[in-house]
Amino acid sequence: MPATEGTFDQSWDQKQDSNDWPPLNPKNGDATSLPVDVLQGQFRSVSIRNDDDDDGESKNFPRHNESSSSLNQATWRSLPIKENHEQFLRDFMDIVIEKAVFEGTSRKNRVVEWTAPIDLLSAINLNPEDKGLTHEDLLSLAKSVIRYSVKTGHPRFINQLYSSIDPYGLAAQWLTDALNPSVYTFEVSPVFSVMEEVVLKEMRKIVGWPDGKGDGIFCPGGSMANGYAVNIARHHQFPQLKETGLSQGPRLVVFTSEDAHYSIKKLCAYLGIGTSNVYSVRVDSRGKMMLDDLEAQIQRAVAECGVPLMVSATAGTTVIGAFDPLRGIADICRKYKIWLHVDAAWGGGALVSAKYSHLLDGIELADSVTWNPHKLLAAPQQCSTLLTRHENLLQAAHSANATYLFQKDKFYDTSYDSGDKHIQCGRRADVFKFWFMWKAKGSDGLESHIDRVFQLSEYFADTIRGRDGWKLLVEPECTNVCFWYVPPSKRHLKGEELTLALQKIAPLIKEKMVRKGSMLITYQPLREHPNFFRLVLQNSGVTESDVMFFIEEIERLSYKL
Amino acid sequence: MPATEGTFDQSWDQKQDSNDWPPLNPKNGDATSLPVDVLQGQFRSVSIRNDDDDDGESKNFPRHNESSSSLNQATWRSLPIKENHEQFLRDFMDIVIEKAVFEGTSRKNRVVEWTAPIDLLSAINLNPEDKGLTHEDLLSLAKSVIRYSVKTGHPRFINQLYSSIDPYGLAAQWLTDALNPSVYTFEVSPVFSVMEEVVLKEMRKIVGWPDGKGDGIFCPGGSMANGYAVNIARHHQFPQLKETGLSQGPRLVVFTSEDAHYSIKKLCAYLGIGTSNVYSVRVDSRGKMMLDDLEAQIQRAVAECGVPLMVSATAGTTVIGAFDPLRGIADICRKYKIWLHVDAAWGGGALVSAKYSHLLDGIELADSVTWNPHKLLAAPQQCSTLLTRHENLLQAAHSANATYLFQKDKFYDTSYDSGDKHIQCGRRADVFKFWFMWKAKGSDGLESHIDRVFQLSEYFADTIRGRDGWKLLVEPECTNVCFWYVPPSKRHLKGEELTLALQKIAPLIKEKMVRKGSMLITYQPLREHPNFFRLVLQNSGVTESDVMFFIEEIERLSYKL
Repeated sequence: MPATEGTFDQSWDQKQDSNDWPPLNPKNGDATSLPVDVLQGQFRSVSIRNDDDDDGESKNFPRHNESSSSLNQATWRSLPIKENHEQFLRDFMDIVIEKAVFEGTSRKNRVVEWTAPIDLLSAINLNPEDKGLTHEDLLSLAKSVIRYSVKTGHPRFINQLYSSIDPYGLAAQWLTDALNPSVYTFEVSPVFSVMEEVVLKEMRKIVGWPDGKGDGIFCPGGSMANGYAVNIARHHQFPQLKETGLSQGPRLVVFTSEDAHYSIKKLCAYLGIGTSNVYSVRVDSRGKMMLDDLEAQIQRAVAECGVPLMVSATAGTTVIGAFDPLRGIADICRKYKIWLHVDAAWGGGALVSAKYSHLLDGIELADSVTWNPHKLLAAPQQCSTLLTRHENLLQAAHSANATYLFQKDKFYDTSYDSGDKHIQCGRRADVFKFWFMWKAKGSDGLESHIDRVFQLSEYFADTIRGRDGWKLLVEPECTNVCFWYVPPSKRHLKGEELTLALQKIAPLIKEKMVRKGSMLITYQPLREHPNFFRLVLQNSGVTESDVMFFIEEIERLSYKL
Repeated sequence: MPATEGTFDQSWDQKQDSNDWPPLNPKNGDATSLPVDVLQGQFRSVSIRNDDDDDGESKNFPRHNESSSSLNQATWRSLPIKENHEQFLRDFMDIVIEKAVFEGTSRKNRVVEWTAPIDLLSAINLNPEDKGLTHEDLLSLAKSVIRYSVKTGHPRFINQLYSSIDPYGLAAQWLTDALNPSVYTFEVSPVFSVMEEVVLKEMRKIVGWPDGKGDGIFCPGGSMANGYAVNIARHHQFPQLKETGLSQGPRLVVFTSEDAHYSIKKLCAYLGIGTSNVYSVRVDSRGKMMLDDLEAQIQRAVAECGVPLMVSATAGTTVIGAFDPLRGIADICRKYKIWLHVDAAWGGGALVSAKYSHLLDGIELADSVTWNPHKLLAAPQQCSTLLTRHENLLQAAHSANATYLFQKDKFYDTSYDSGDKHIQCGRRADVFKFWFMWKAKGSDGLESHIDRVFQLSEYFADTIRGRDGWKLLVEPECTNVCFWYVPPSKRHLKGEELTLALQKIAPLIKEKMVRKGSMLITYQPLREHPNFFRLVLQNSGVTESDVMFFIEEIERLSYKL
């Protein structure tokens, strides 16, 4: 059989070398007699030799027992078939675009249609079925899922450190899904493998490392990025621990502020360092790490026979949005030879703004940086990065050299086979949505976005700063604005009574807010402070009118408290 | 201001209690005078009180300096605007559906249009721009990204343990993206929080735990799931290590077979256990863990003053697809009181088939199970789970009790706020695509899918089993079929000469295959075996004719070797 194809293969290979892509002739061996591009000149289509008909079923081999006209039976097959699925996919996307994207972000509609957990179980039949549903039923289910979901892209969703649905990021995410890549080898994910390196290098340039030198990875969330930072710091100082394990090593100590994200402690527990070896450094009245206490904690660790491993500074704390004094922390890290990590998951976006990048002054002195474009820069979730100025360390710390995946005898430059730098094996291409947004907006657009969300938060703070019943917890640095609101009936309270009242007021307002569905903002206690609200802005589609709505709606909701 | 709204709020709250959702009147306080459902009766729309016009801009407050007619300027805003973005999104999805979904999975087209890394950088301008691009340019970029990406949904992509683009899974993924949820609290992700619990329970029932009792999580990939397993095993046996860290504990030892996935070693390094404390257990000629060697390794660990922590058995090894003898391993684990984890990331899908579930006989004796629906069940990436029969352990091992996120004074049942079980904070809703596929196909359909991919791999093995030049590495158990192909010119070789030739043949065939783009199959060495090919089938849209194409194409590509 192969013998008859000799000429065919030969002509193909010759054409390959000339970098001209001829189609393969499905019926005979002459590869040059068919048009090269058959699909609108945009996307070169090449007919691959098939021994029989185009549907891939051969008359010479047992045919699977199925009537090809039966759409119902075909639903279990995992291959999209144009005549079976195109209309469904288009109908489905009509619903998604209309109801989730545009109605879900319209100020005319609720942010949430509150339904208690128990009621949700009856509102949507969540149980799997024995027999598959019809397309009609599936479309109806999709509508229900949209209806009862919180509209996190709504301009009145200011509840978390993510929000909005950026239209370009969303489009790119849709395309990523359709390509379903796993970014571990160039072989199966060529475009996204190269794109990751380009984007990570640009981000390192913005951080301030010369020529963008260093290394980096995309990972599923800032917590994971912080975990990677701890592990490369550990590997940098004690490379043998990768093999021996920590039971053979010293007691390592990590330092971070009391206002740092909980992932530092959580990942230190996971990595075997232990929560009690995360030393908490005090913050000042604005939530910034205190340098003298950092130095005191380092000296305490040494006195207690611990080995200082890393200081994790925060650029944009989760609740207050404070920026730790990076330059001063870097001085201390240099003095004691400690790895400096900067968790800029939240505040990193400010680096693209000439006006606000000073908030992260000194970040270029860090050994590693966590920066999540899905936060301030409003990329869809998840889009998180860990950047480091140390080359090859990610690979050294994490590689396992699996020969089934990272073959060294491939015919191409395998330096783009980046998978072994990660602790994940399969991994989604989170880069594309951010890259596509960057292309759509330009660096100038990203800067306008950042400047706008800072401007909005300043507008909010300015507006409530003298308004009856409102009190800022702290002067904001990032786009977080933390505040208490005291309804008229409670304004006479003082001291402990006021504290007790405040602890209850925010949850009560929040309950009314959720049930009404008009907006979503979160509350929390912090250190000695009773429950307060935290506005977070990263949606540049929010307007001053929305900001006024937030203020007046909170007043409305609290009126009867 | 709030005073005038008192009646309004009151009537609203009363309506809430009656579970009837009135709209809010944008112009006056009478909430009952407007129609309840304004959007086609499918999706209840509620007008939220706005102080002025619908675009959210207020005439009373500073307006951002932008002409609303300027589409270009608006691209940096993260909010979708119907008049600016709807046509773009629809045009974009036309390209995605036509080029990525249907042309990308058509047998008439290539699996890959090979372009070397250096050439890719000139084929697509990957560098970020200062100024944003036009919609036209963006659509053109999207086409280029599709063109140069590997079509992992193509029926001739049999290169990895994922493939295909299931149309229902894909649709659900698109909807998930549009809702952009983070599944850490019911408050912001109500539907997916509840859905996760329903699906995880169903999966536990399928594993065989009574009434589906236990716990579980979705996580980004099987490597992560295996890491979770190690950590809950550790917390189960030594809960104090979460706080103290491993430097204060014994040397823990994990046992897994030499053919197990590399993530066990990788994650044990990451978790501080150390690669040298992962003891390799020998496999038999079919790639299955040998019980006598397992027991010998456990006794060696004890003799060396190590503490046995976990046996990680594999149900469907990565390369060969072997199923470890779970029942026998469970006996040994019981005898030595060791945690039994089963990495069924790959083979777990066989559990839904009456015909093939026997391969995982004894899995119900496991303490924890990794099972990735994105592998054999062909859900889009990523969809991975870690299941355990131990309740509350995930929470105990991983919780950090962040008060800003997991407030205990919320007004609803916070048991669905599952985020603190995870080491991630923000987390994508990977459940929906799998749930939606299950709804579309039914349990019967999932079973048909599994039976079909096994049938196809049996057909492949049967066909090559006496064919000239073909040799099975091992009789297949899962849908992996490992084989050597020796071209005619090399068939006279024997012994060491043949081994050396085989080591080179597979990479050469692979290079020709990639450059031609007609199919993608991976090769690797394993233990003493030189490079061989591994066919993996999880796309139930593959046909017998495709299988014959694989065979004949490999023969064609090798003809001149």
